[in-house]
Amino acid sequence: MSSLNSPLLDNAVAELSKLPGIGRKTALRLALHLLRQEKETAFALGSSIIEMRENIKYCKRCHNISESDLCPFCSDSRRDPDTVCVVENVKDVLTVESTHEHLGLYHVLGGLISPLDGISPSDLEIESLVKRVKEEGIKEVILALSPTMEGDTTNFYIYRKLADLPVKVTMLARGVAIGNELEYTDELTLGRSIQNRMLFKDTFHE
Amino acid sequence: MSSLNSPLLDNAVAELSKLPGIGRKTALRLALHLLRQEKETAFALGSSIIEMRENIKYCKRCHNISESDLCPFCSDSRRDPDTVCVVENVKDVLTVESTHEHLGLYHVLGGLISPLDGISPSDLEIESLVKRVKEEGIKEVILALSPTMEGDTTNFYIYRKLADLPVKVTMLARGVAIGNELEYTDELTLGRSIQNRMLFKDTFHE
Repeated sequence: MSSLNSPLLDNAVAELSKLPGIGRKTALRLALHLLRQEKETAFALGSSIIEMRENIKYCKRCHNISESDLCPFCSDSRRDPDTVCVVENVKDVLTVESTHEHLGLYHVLGGLISPLDGISPSDLEIESLVKRVKEEGIKEVILALSPTMEGDTTNFYIYRKLADLPVKVTMLARGVAIGNELEYTDELTLGRSIQNRMLFKDTFHE
Repeated sequence: MSSLNSPLLDNAVAELSKLPGIGRKTALRLALHLLRQEKETAFALGSSIIEMRENIKYCKRCHNISESDLCPFCSDSRRDPDTVCVVENVKDVLTVESTHEHLGLYHVLGGLISPLDGISPSDLEIESLVKRVKEEGIKEVILALSPTMEGDTTNFYIYRKLADLPVKVTMLARGVAIGNELEYTDELTLGRSIQNRMLFKDTFHE
């Protein structure tokens, strides 16, 4: 007799608990929930996962997820090909898109340089970024990486790689977050936002 | 262009967010995690869900989940068929089993009587319990339902249904939880545990 009295349930619970943030108790709750639903519900979930993994590919140009060779951004002629926003992963594409402030293309690195985690520049899509800058005549590369040690390392590495090319390399502004109380802003961020202080009149957007 | 730039990803996220306690943000995180894994990982998860829902049935006798007509408990000759523990759902079978205190069989009601939720006795496996008591010569029915209004209602309903049959009907002891501070025990529980106070010498289990 297996621990849950059913090898099939055991197996589903084991697979569900491999998901990040889902422990064995939650996995059991989800599996029992699925058992109570119509068969169609469980089948739709199972097959949506399989079909997604089977058919989603990566864009040959920017390495965003895509169902064809080029992702919807790269194949959209209304996007500005002169400006490329460099992000860590696919999710950050969605995060940047949600601001509606970037109208250009993307380049997904697939991670950040992190010697501690064994991630070196060659594991990331950095060479392909340099190649794009050379071949596509990109005018501006916006580094939109997390303001962490890994993000800063990666920013600097890419900056050096692009230094000799005729491209403007910009990065996200660092400063106090909008809506945050100054009292709770860490001193590093606050210090940086004093160094990078802006002319007040420049803050009036149109 | 769909909201996530991929109908396949959209679909998987939509199906995942139907799971209880999983919102859209978590569903997206899980889907992107699965995209980063080997294909086999996603396939194993998807097919484990489908196969579980396809092949798990319910025990004809006690309505616990089962992969055959009789569940592992009902078909295990070492379990005592004279004592049947009545539980709300499949999960509670596991909860009771984890105590190693019940060596008999189970009967899974599939819910509790709850007029507010539209659950009446006829929606539950109560008639089949009465039938089992009559036909199987069960000597004791242990009501192991939650100490809630719905649990109490269901306890009382079952008690009345079995009143004329030669069976002992018992229920879980109500009292202060082991390890809890008395100060934080609610007065109802504390009051009940005074009413049902035990001889101190009876508490020495061998």
